[in-house]
Amino acid sequence: MLNPLFATEATSAIFSDRARLQAMLEFEAALARAEAAVGVIPTAAADAIVRACLADNFDLVALARETAQAGNPAIPTVKQLTVLVAKADAPAARFVHWGATSQDAMDTGLVLQMRAGLASIEADLQTLSAELATLAKAHAKTPMIGRTLLQQAVPVTFGLKAAGWLSAVERSRTRIAEAGGAARVLQFGGAAGTLASLGERGLDVAAELAKELALDLPDLPWHSHRDRLVDLAATLGLLVGTLGKIARDIALLMQTEVGEAAEPAGPGRGGSSTMPHKRNPIGCAVALAAAQRVPQLVATLLAAMPQEHERGLGGWHAEWETIPEIFLLASGALRHIADAVAGLTIDPERMGENLEATRGLIMAEAVMMALGDHIGRLEAHHLVEAACRRAVEQGRHLRDVLAQDPAVTAHLSPDALDRLFAPDSYLGIAEGFVQRVLAARKPR
Amino acid sequence: MLNPLFATEATSAIFSDRARLQAMLEFEAALARAEAAVGVIPTAAADAIVRACLADNFDLVALARETAQAGNPAIPTVKQLTVLVAKADAPAARFVHWGATSQDAMDTGLVLQMRAGLASIEADLQTLSAELATLAKAHAKTPMIGRTLLQQAVPVTFGLKAAGWLSAVERSRTRIAEAGGAARVLQFGGAAGTLASLGERGLDVAAELAKELALDLPDLPWHSHRDRLVDLAATLGLLVGTLGKIARDIALLMQTEVGEAAEPAGPGRGGSSTMPHKRNPIGCAVALAAAQRVPQLVATLLAAMPQEHERGLGGWHAEWETIPEIFLLASGALRHIADAVAGLTIDPERMGENLEATRGLIMAEAVMMALGDHIGRLEAHHLVEAACRRAVEQGRHLRDVLAQDPAVTAHLSPDALDRLFAPDSYLGIAEGFVQRVLAARKPR
Amino acid sequence: MLNPLFATEATSAIFSDRARLQAMLEFEAALARAEAAVGVIPTAAADAIVRACLADNFDLVALARETAQAGNPAIPTVKQLTVLVAKADAPAARFVHWGATSQDAMDTGLVLQMRAGLASIEADLQTLSAELATLAKAHAKTPMIGRTLLQQAVPVTFGLKAAGWLSAVERSRTRIAEAGGAARVLQFGGAAGTLASLGERGLDVAAELAKELALDLPDLPWHSHRDRLVDLAATLGLLVGTLGKIARDIALLMQTEVGEAAEPAGPGRGGSSTMPHKRNPIGCAVALAAAQRVPQLVATLLAAMPQEHERGLGGWHAEWETIPEIFLLASGALRHIADAVAGLTIDPERMGENLEATRGLIMAEAVMMALGDHIGRLEAHHLVEAACRRAVEQGRHLRDVLAQDPAVTAHLSPDALDRLFAPDSYLGIAEGFVQRVLAARKPR
Amino acid sequence: MLNPLFATEATSAIFSDRARLQAMLEFEAALARAEAAVGVIPTAAADAIVRACLADNFDLVALARETAQAGNPAIPTVKQLTVLVAKADAPAARFVHWGATSQDAMDTGLVLQMRAGLASIEADLQTLSAELATLAKAHAKTPMIGRTLLQQAVPVTFGLKAAGWLSAVERSRTRIAEAGGAARVLQFGGAAGTLASLGERGLDVAAELAKELALDLPDLPWHSHRDRLVDLAATLGLLVGTLGKIARDIALLMQTEVGEAAEPAGPGRGGSSTMPHKRNPIGCAVALAAAQRVPQLVATLLAAMPQEHERGLGGWHAEWETIPEIFLLASGALRHIADAVAGLTIDPERMGENLEATRGLIMAEAVMMALGDHIGRLEAHHLVEAACRRAVEQGRHLRDVLAQDPAVTAHLSPDALDRLFAPDSYLGIAEGFVQRVLAARKPR
Repeated sequence: MLNPLFATEATSAIFSDRARLQAMLEFEAALARAEAAVGVIPTAAADAIVRACLADNFDLVALARETAQAGNPAIPTVKQLTVLVAKADAPAARFVHWGATSQDAMDTGLVLQMRAGLASIEADLQTLSAELATLAKAHAKTPMIGRTLLQQAVPVTFGLKAAGWLSAVERSRTRIAEAGGAARVLQFGGAAGTLASLGERGLDVAAELAKELALDLPDLPWHSHRDRLVDLAATLGLLVGTLGKIARDIALLMQTEVGEAAEPAGPGRGGSSTMPHKRNPIGCAVALAAAQRVPQLVATLLAAMPQEHERGLGGWHAEWETIPEIFLLASGALRHIADAVAGLTIDPERMGENLEATRGLIMAEAVMMALGDHIGRLEAHHLVEAACRRAVEQGRHLRDVLAQDPAVTAHLSPDALDRLFAPDSYLGIAEGFVQRVLAARKPR
Repeated sequence: MLNPLFATEATSAIFSDRARLQAMLEFEAALARAEAAVGVIPTAAADAIVRACLADNFDLVALARETAQAGNPAIPTVKQLTVLVAKADAPAARFVHWGATSQDAMDTGLVLQMRAGLASIEADLQTLSAELATLAKAHAKTPMIGRTLLQQAVPVTFGLKAAGWLSAVERSRTRIAEAGGAARVLQFGGAAGTLASLGERGLDVAAELAKELALDLPDLPWHSHRDRLVDLAATLGLLVGTLGKIARDIALLMQTEVGEAAEPAGPGRGGSSTMPHKRNPIGCAVALAAAQRVPQLVATLLAAMPQEHERGLGGWHAEWETIPEIFLLASGALRHIADAVAGLTIDPERMGENLEATRGLIMAEAVMMALGDHIGRLEAHHLVEAACRRAVEQGRHLRDVLAQDPAVTAHLSPDALDRLFAPDSYLGIAEGFVQRVLAARKPR
Repeated sequence: MLNPLFATEATSAIFSDRARLQAMLEFEAALARAEAAVGVIPTAAADAIVRACLADNFDLVALARETAQAGNPAIPTVKQLTVLVAKADAPAARFVHWGATSQDAMDTGLVLQMRAGLASIEADLQTLSAELATLAKAHAKTPMIGRTLLQQAVPVTFGLKAAGWLSAVERSRTRIAEAGGAARVLQFGGAAGTLASLGERGLDVAAELAKELALDLPDLPWHSHRDRLVDLAATLGLLVGTLGKIARDIALLMQTEVGEAAEPAGPGRGGSSTMPHKRNPIGCAVALAAAQRVPQLVATLLAAMPQEHERGLGGWHAEWETIPEIFLLASGALRHIADAVAGLTIDPERMGENLEATRGLIMAEAVMMALGDHIGRLEAHHLVEAACRRAVEQGRHLRDVLAQDPAVTAHLSPDALDRLFAPDSYLGIAEGFVQRVLAARKPR
Repeated sequence: MLNPLFATEATSAIFSDRARLQAMLEFEAALARAEAAVGVIPTAAADAIVRACLADNFDLVALARETAQAGNPAIPTVKQLTVLVAKADAPAARFVHWGATSQDAMDTGLVLQMRAGLASIEADLQTLSAELATLAKAHAKTPMIGRTLLQQAVPVTFGLKAAGWLSAVERSRTRIAEAGGAARVLQFGGAAGTLASLGERGLDVAAELAKELALDLPDLPWHSHRDRLVDLAATLGLLVGTLGKIARDIALLMQTEVGEAAEPAGPGRGGSSTMPHKRNPIGCAVALAAAQRVPQLVATLLAAMPQEHERGLGGWHAEWETIPEIFLLASGALRHIADAVAGLTIDPERMGENLEATRGLIMAEAVMMALGDHIGRLEAHHLVEAACRRAVEQGRHLRDVLAQDPAVTAHLSPDALDRLFAPDSYLGIAEGFVQRVLAARKPR
């Protein structure tokens, strides 16, 4: 019931039971083709095997039941496949799964699923990146308050915030492309990683099989070395962390008392069952939930890495549901944030009001730096800190308090003070930073 | 495809989408009954609502789709329920979900699912406990080598090992019973936990509702205080840790080179797709996988506890799939270990052979303690350590090396040495420990 | 440098290297006394050992260096202790550590440290609980807005929020007392848990030793069954989760734009190096940091539970720094929150202003429920939802929009509408919930 | 006490309190130099600041105490620095920390510490890689049993196992070099990331400052975007996972009952306090402990990524002790495994004996494949499976059972059977895989 909320339709399909089966069958079909090409099995047998490798031919319920007995889904899959092939071409049945081990089919199948999952994620990443670039550009000069430790600090621009999001998303794109590329490797080692049952032909078959599946051929089988998979999962974890950061910011900006930005609304979207006025930040909720779940799933994979000898006991099994779950959650969080950003309502007027909320306290640093030029940073700090305290106690604007302090007016004229209190006079090189990020962005 | 491997059929059903829906409907039905009993809504309306609260009446696919829009499954459930009630009894429809909020239905529904899940787990725990008690009793005097840091240490008994497992399982039973009891509380607070929409009748309805569902009435609603749920999840995590410990021990004992115990075999069970001789420790693999996954899922829940104000954003959502997953994995690991223990093959002969594997080195402590009585522990340690080194270097039995050392023979006669090297002469109070554990076990 | 920020002075001392050493020495001293009492070693030897068991007599730098070689700190500790005893009373040296193994000293020492740590934590818990009770009582009628998913929802009281915190803290007190009690057990099993080197006297010595240290005697040694420790750690994790929840709430209330509550200020406390006006929520930052770190540390312990045979390889070692870290972080977070709550500034006026922020939207549910009595909940929902939309679009107060809607005025008079929009008329049984929590609180 | 066991001396020094302070002072000194170079502050002031930036001049105890008040260590550091500068050159004091914020000093300081930590780790990685290459080469033809799910499977070579370790270590070297390079960026943004207090000169100062510290200049400040740090931490987590895998393998091979490899022994190394004969796998214990702790620490960092607005509350603070801890644990695990591998004792004779442990069962696949050529894989599987069962039941060698089965002898002659049962006849392309790994290894 929750799948459509937490994952995209695309990745749900890619990591479904049926797709898991089909991916293993892709391996078995490609193996047969490769072995026929190399001359290890007859071409006719390969043809019969390839024809049987369709998930629709299989009984998923029986597979599930037998998996519980066999301990992994490849064993009953190979059994059903063998029966299917035998029905169509009895002699061909003996060549099913020739030279391979369960983990070869499962791992390579997983790699194929991940490749498809990454294509979907990379497309959404591109969309999100483009939307963020648009936002950063459009609001490069829109002043808003910067907040540190949840307290108003000094002014920034909304463009700077969006540029920060964009820059992080771009780094994730790069990382995912790299780790994804490195993980697109064939798994093929036979029972214990020597391809012994293929005699001298092991490497030829492996190379042909990799070509068939458009995967890279690794140095050696990696049945109990899972770092490539875990690296990719960790880069998805980093992406989800960045999505969580964007979600956190939007949700905070969307608070009733802040009101500077809002997720898009829509019929039936983010309503409350009892509070008709509410527009809940659903996309943020989903991304933040993912940002709390995925880190631990990555930890599961990292902690499962010390797998025993030539095939792990428990550690390997811990990956089977965990890796798909990471893809599902990452894709869902990404889609929700891409949608939220694409439809984000920005309220520059409210941003302006909030810049006035402290009655000038947020410009204290500007004043302090200006005063510091005359009387030193530390002394200026003390003087302005005291003025802030008075402003708070007396409920007055900091500008007015300062304007009555001879230690200040000795150095700053009323005009100078006024200029110091204009938020857009104290944005430093925010715009320059936005430009740097936009310039560095690769269109891809 | 993997569900039947990692979870039991019972918990899979209890935490299915359909059961999640039905549990929310139990809440809605009981709410209607309670409100009718207290006089807040008409009895006829309650009857109409109760009649509609059957999962079979609902369109799960539509619910899933609308959940993705609404942000939680309770909103579309209440909508569909209202439509269903309206069809049968239009005026009754206005009383659906009266005074409640989405989280009331979802949390109470979850509590009902957990209660059912715990009943299933507690039954399996009882079975496991009984099997372990049988093992501990049967092998209270069966000597085997104790191993520390994966090195042979000094003799123990298999009964002592089983008693250690049993004692930990019993502690888990107690903890789960307690945390489970504490978590069996109603959630009912309305929009923000004040039951404001029920005016003065809030507490009466809540008390009646708790009675209807046979749940405890908490001090106050706990929408953003999740400690009871997380506590229960943590006790399941502790159980899984203990199951993982048992699995680790069995898997290590089952190594080809050790061969002291083995999981039960069976047709199609734990075979290999390429190695016909193999009997894989499937139950251990599943329990060890759970022991690597559940800790992180518990961490997810713990980390999600700081939920904002009256309802969390993201933290709450992170629980929705995580809590069921913990129940599924715990139940599956438990069933697998219960089965493995029930059918465990013990090989006392092989245990005896392994006690001889070090040619007496494992009895070094026995000798050292005996010598220590005469020459002090530290000196005895040095002397025996040297003898061990010689025994290893020369490939001789430690007894023979010691028998030629005058510093030893000055204090220990050949007969004394022989007695010192009999494993069952150096079991201390292993049997007493087993008795203590058996005596403390509550039959329940 | 960070220790005084993240931990209390008390727990820092309790879990220092020196205290770790002293706790192991308490074990060695008590062991000697117990063995003398039972007659296993001479009283004079015990006296000499007891006299030497002072951390000040030891060379901590050498201990650290030798620990790196030996693989655990007990081995070099026992060596240094033996040398020390030998200097004072040569024959007594042979009885040092008699019958025990490294893990006996380390685990029992840890239990002693934890007992001291818990005493400190329980004292701070009592303080926090009392402060929260005072807050809940004082503000049982102070209206503020309830917020769900970071959006304004319906009114609650600050007392209800404080009662929610209090109720969770009380549950943590109970849990910690129980798990702490269960973890106060002796570890004493010798090399592999049989106490073999003490022959028939093992249980007598163990019982006497437990009495000496005022610890419970467990059914059997628990060298590779760590559930009691992990359970206690998990209850601390639950406490930290609740502290994080309180911190999250305070930090959100303390936002410049919300301003309903604030951590206490003080000279040098929570300032910024560049923004003189800032008052950072330091206590919340520390508690929230702990709430992000401790869950994973609990997961480390849970995941380390499947320890091999009679002593774990790696799993046990993973606990050595992790358990102290959990105590340090929990104690620090607790102290910070206790201080923050004790000095919390509450601003009921600002709470009142924020209740007006939505121009009546937060009272939509009140209106909907009142209307629902007349026209049904669903229809009322639609009608009020539409009115909310108009109020937002036109920037008007919801009351005014509703007052012009004949469908509303047909059922609600202007006076009735006014009453519906008074926040304190829609607090349900908030006060009753507060009373329930206060009544249930045990003074302890 | 445990530091020298779990970390290297080098990283302990790099991440000490004193080094943390010195790294922040490097930032302050470089900032002064850069600002003087750009003309923002007087050269004389910069000189005075630079001269004061020595940790030895500071009172660490006072810093720690004031950190607890201020909420971070940079605030009291800047205060002490200002006092120190003022003593030597009063007018210069006003230019201390000019334009920077606490997090600029803390983050850049951390980056400098990480750079030093990585240099140390990379050196040890190079050593480990070289040792593994030597092992893989030396044992490219040393047959041993391959083990899957802790059961004997089919033969492999020890060189293949070492090549698997090597290949994974090489991937870690590449990943760490890349993530380390990406993380070597300056942090410099002032109060909220705009460098507002430097007016137009912000970028010039930033560029000069980056040059001074030999760091890269990022697109924009990254105060609340932590992905570069977390990515680096995750790559260290991947390294630790691989080290844990090597440790797991060695520890299992070192079991008394297996005895195929052993960590180096040495005086005082890995002994037991009570069992003089024991040689504990200390290095493996440390690496496995790290492999259980680091994943969760990485999860802490990932989960802390959604940091609020321009500076996180709690999430940032959660990093302060966690990142150093990861470096310490990774470096310690690496050094232990490098030492263990460098001094690893290999016992090819014992490997040979263990290849005989199953009386031929491990060659079942070889037989099955050979038979499969004649009668089909599935039928061969059934036939050999049955023969294995008989061999086990009757305690006979599989070869002898097969030699009496006409269904076998119809296709395989006695000689053919003999050849099939020679382990080194069934190593497939193990040697080829080793060569591929060695060829791909970059000397660096």
